[in-house]
Amino acid sequence: MSQGRPREFDVDRALESATRQFWAVGYEATSLQDLLRVMRLSKSSLYQTFGSKQALFIKCLDHYQQSMTEKLLQQLARSASPKAFLHHFLEEVVAEAGAKTKAGKKGCFLVSSANELSQRDSDVRKAVATGSAHVATVFRRAFEQAVAQGEMTAPASLDALVDYFMTAVSGLRTMVKAGMKKEDLLPVIGFIMKTLE
Amino acid sequence: MSQGRPREFDVDRALESATRQFWAVGYEATSLQDLLRVMRLSKSSLYQTFGSKQALFIKCLDHYQQSMTEKLLQQLARSASPKAFLHHFLEEVVAEAGAKTKAGKKGCFLVSSANELSQRDSDVRKAVATGSAHVATVFRRAFEQAVAQGEMTAPASLDALVDYFMTAVSGLRTMVKAGMKKEDLLPVIGFIMKTLE
Repeated sequence: MSQGRPREFDVDRALESATRQFWAVGYEATSLQDLLRVMRLSKSSLYQTFGSKQALFIKCLDHYQQSMTEKLLQQLARSASPKAFLHHFLEEVVAEAGAKTKAGKKGCFLVSSANELSQRDSDVRKAVATGSAHVATVFRRAFEQAVAQGEMTAPASLDALVDYFMTAVSGLRTMVKAGMKKEDLLPVIGFIMKTLE
Repeated sequence: MSQGRPREFDVDRALESATRQFWAVGYEATSLQDLLRVMRLSKSSLYQTFGSKQALFIKCLDHYQQSMTEKLLQQLARSASPKAFLHHFLEEVVAEAGAKTKAGKKGCFLVSSANELSQRDSDVRKAVATGSAHVATVFRRAFEQAVAQGEMTAPASLDALVDYFMTAVSGLRTMVKAGMKKEDLLPVIGFIMKTLE
């Protein structure tokens, strides 16, 4: 191990801190100073370890999608039924509308990044697409299980249903950010769940 | 009229230019220099006329929602049927996924602003909410007409259906920005339209 390079556990913790920072305020609004402060790194360590602000951001996206996918797979495994899992997931998204703090309303890091950057940064767009596809595999598995267990009729196209669900979730996240009330969003979940019958 | 103040037609044109700039790259990524360049104003004229970057941004949101609402009302009036109008609107949103240029994929200024700023700026959140509510009245009218013309069964709650539609549109816009292909998004429109039966 060369001198002056942070140890592995420091890299992970720094990545976690950078993810929280980018997620909370976005890429543009995060300054180098913010990153150095929350990651507790020197400028040279940051650049040595992560390359650039953009490269660090992409590593954060990857870190986020991996932990989100893992968490969702655990929730699906523990859930009473695949449809209950899907319903509960949508309710959790909408529950953020009732959160009192900004931190409680931060939504999904992938969706926020798609909206902020995907259009003008093709590396970010690829990372968001890969991350979303990874998360989507969990919903695909839930749909397959729901069909197998007779909770849902088999859709004409499973791909299209997964795309629809991801679209609906992204829409709910925007509505939450736009300040829509939880009680107004719960009926919207009803319409989405009706599509999964 | 006091000296040194830009004339009315200049204010309108400047607002239009500022809207295009903010819409294309977002609030944070737009510098004061960018605004002065595209609006062809001096720093003092900009501050005298619009107050601040944030106040200018809110005026741009209002300008945008008014022209969007007007354009949609004209499209609804000209359309063969209210449901054809709604379907066509969704197709136009998705068509941006096939656009070759960044400018062709800029989406909806209200949705982008909600995603970038609503969470941390309550004035922007209010302007987005007012603007969205204004645009939503067009879809509400389309639903009312569709029910009156027998194209659609009356929903249990028209409010909830309008909220669902706005959610679905916001979701489609995020999917477009995230780089999803037009041919993958067209089946998603099918699911959304199925909810309007």
